[in-house]
Amino acid sequence: MNKTRLRKYAHLIASTGANIQKGQEVIVAAGLDQPEFVKMLVEECYKLGAKKVSVDWSYQPLEKLAIRYQSSKVLGKLEDWQIEKWKHQAEFLPAKIYLTSEDPDGLKGVNQKKYAKARAERAITIKPIRRAMENRYQWCIAGVPGEAWAKKVFPGMRVSTAVEKLWEAILDTSRVDDDPIAAWDAHNKDLADRSAYLNSLELRKLVYKASNGTDLTVGLIPEALFCAGGETSTEGIYFNPNIPTEEVFTSPKKGEAEGIVYSSLPLSYGGELIENFWIRFEGGKAVESGAERNADLLNEMLTLDEGASYLGECALVPYSSPIRKSGVLFYNTLYDENAACHLAIGMGFTNVLRDFDKYTDDEAHKLGINDSVTHVDFMIGTADLSITGIDKDGKEIKIFENGEWAF
Amino acid sequence: MNKTRLRKYAHLIASTGANIQKGQEVIVAAGLDQPEFVKMLVEECYKLGAKKVSVDWSYQPLEKLAIRYQSSKVLGKLEDWQIEKWKHQAEFLPAKIYLTSEDPDGLKGVNQKKYAKARAERAITIKPIRRAMENRYQWCIAGVPGEAWAKKVFPGMRVSTAVEKLWEAILDTSRVDDDPIAAWDAHNKDLADRSAYLNSLELRKLVYKASNGTDLTVGLIPEALFCAGGETSTEGIYFNPNIPTEEVFTSPKKGEAEGIVYSSLPLSYGGELIENFWIRFEGGKAVESGAERNADLLNEMLTLDEGASYLGECALVPYSSPIRKSGVLFYNTLYDENAACHLAIGMGFTNVLRDFDKYTDDEAHKLGINDSVTHVDFMIGTADLSITGIDKDGKEIKIFENGEWAF
Repeated sequence: MNKTRLRKYAHLIASTGANIQKGQEVIVAAGLDQPEFVKMLVEECYKLGAKKVSVDWSYQPLEKLAIRYQSSKVLGKLEDWQIEKWKHQAEFLPAKIYLTSEDPDGLKGVNQKKYAKARAERAITIKPIRRAMENRYQWCIAGVPGEAWAKKVFPGMRVSTAVEKLWEAILDTSRVDDDPIAAWDAHNKDLADRSAYLNSLELRKLVYKASNGTDLTVGLIPEALFCAGGETSTEGIYFNPNIPTEEVFTSPKKGEAEGIVYSSLPLSYGGELIENFWIRFEGGKAVESGAERNADLLNEMLTLDEGASYLGECALVPYSSPIRKSGVLFYNTLYDENAACHLAIGMGFTNVLRDFDKYTDDEAHKLGINDSVTHVDFMIGTADLSITGIDKDGKEIKIFENGEWAF
Repeated sequence: MNKTRLRKYAHLIASTGANIQKGQEVIVAAGLDQPEFVKMLVEECYKLGAKKVSVDWSYQPLEKLAIRYQSSKVLGKLEDWQIEKWKHQAEFLPAKIYLTSEDPDGLKGVNQKKYAKARAERAITIKPIRRAMENRYQWCIAGVPGEAWAKKVFPGMRVSTAVEKLWEAILDTSRVDDDPIAAWDAHNKDLADRSAYLNSLELRKLVYKASNGTDLTVGLIPEALFCAGGETSTEGIYFNPNIPTEEVFTSPKKGEAEGIVYSSLPLSYGGELIENFWIRFEGGKAVESGAERNADLLNEMLTLDEGASYLGECALVPYSSPIRKSGVLFYNTLYDENAACHLAIGMGFTNVLRDFDKYTDDEAHKLGINDSVTHVDFMIGTADLSITGIDKDGKEIKIFENGEWAF
């Protein structure tokens, strides 16, 4: 891949993405796949004035060995120094950049139950610390091609060709063209305009319907906003958590979801793919589900904790999004969630509440923001999906028609 | 490289090297160069019963950026959680495996003074913790080829060929043949026999002479032993800190070194090469030095702290060692120090003292073990080096003649 274009991408992530501030600490999480790009990104952070940039490297095959050989107790435990590291982050609020590159099938064959339990235990340990730092620091997720990932997305190609093709798909969908910064400014403005319109409607419900059988009504929280693109940390720093992003999203009201929804894309979860699945909701809760592949894993996902069976997010993405138009199935949520409308089970976002910092967590949960250690997006957008909004007076407003924005 | 042979090497490092115990934690430090070998090594550790194996990955280009962009203050500081991690190690005594693979020229061009100062500051911070865990845990250093390292060792070759050749040189000199474990048992017995003989002589001085001008007399500590090959932690676990190792070594008496010594191989220090250098000692102290290349760096090295100008190690290696016979200049101390007799400036080894655990650090230093934050080996062995021992009665005993053991 052309180095100038890669450096533009690195700069986009460090500036428009994480918006690194002078004197700030930065932590990058990355696999071993693209060390030279990581080096570029680190240098871009320093050039923006970062005082210290650390990289937490990870290597999926070692995670697989850990799941296999470690006892459940050891696997679920964070050492004191690891907790101390989280506390350091809560205190000094380093910006965090996550470079995703893993093999979607990389954890195939592991004991998923053992792994999910261990992840949940670790998540519980650090939950108070994560909560304490929530919305206070900038973060950004972006992708770089790993070899196994590229081979999954472009099977039958030579590895080097597949990696090159995946680089192209990543850079194209991330708007890395002549002037990525300007492209993102324009894109963010469009998303902000759509969110503002939706928020002016004072919607109370969304009704999803599609020919695949989807017929779901989801309740909305009056205090919650539709959000999109960049957000602003409580420290007042504007940043873009996802590169790319096409969605306008909110967190729905816990306890208000009735009907059935069918998936429109495979879901990569814990290294496995859950395919052609459906979930039926009653009183907001997932009470029944099924899948052509990995139905048990879907059920585990929905029962990880109490909140895992309730919705945490409703996201609106036109079927004509650049990611969908690229024709590439990425097998990676960062991209695929921007190909289509989606929902998420698990944790909702307290920061979608208007003036969210005036609410305690408990108050936010009482308003209807779901609480869980997990958050998993799954795609439901189809070419014929319609979404109707119902406002506070019961009036119906077309939001989506034939998979596209209706306004 | 043949996978069966690599797995034998991984097993050798985990068993004969670090001698991983059932239920023990293991920390591996590795570059990004050979992740598949790291995976093999981690699996071998688990197979020996390790309860948890973590890998601390590092990437030299990021160190270079850190030296360039971080302030001296930030560069020299360890965060609280990093100190906590060291304390965890002092408490739980995980075995540590270091896989060396760096580019010998990887830190060329950095501000060496800034870097050395920062390293010294970090070393001072953790010195009490390192001291508290010293001799109590197993550790092992071994090598794996990095691309830049391989290109340095085998210039003019294609990268993949150079890496393959360096793998061969590493595996050959590390005795990874049909049965590496048996080969190491035999080798360790030979080294133990030679050490036992040297210790029976009750030597008080070593006199080094060679035609290049070397003429140096070094005092020995009566309470100190010659050691070699494996050692035993205070927890009673036998392990081999270096793969390969050919040396029989001791720590000399601080304050007793007179004369001049000439290097016989280049010294890789802080990413730079110091070449064709000499050091003159008076009253044990390096009082004058010179080098054809990087003389200033040599001087910085010798003045890093008070102890850096005194000797910490005398190591005896026959000129016919497998490393020398391989004809390969590795530009890496782990290998090159086993090609020839060498000395080290800086920290001596308190565990060379007979019944070392009955001495406090202060007592060990009073006996003559040098104290410093640094320890740097440099090669002095030539084909015509002679070493004469002088025992407690003033009797002369030939130890080395024409670069080889004289007994």
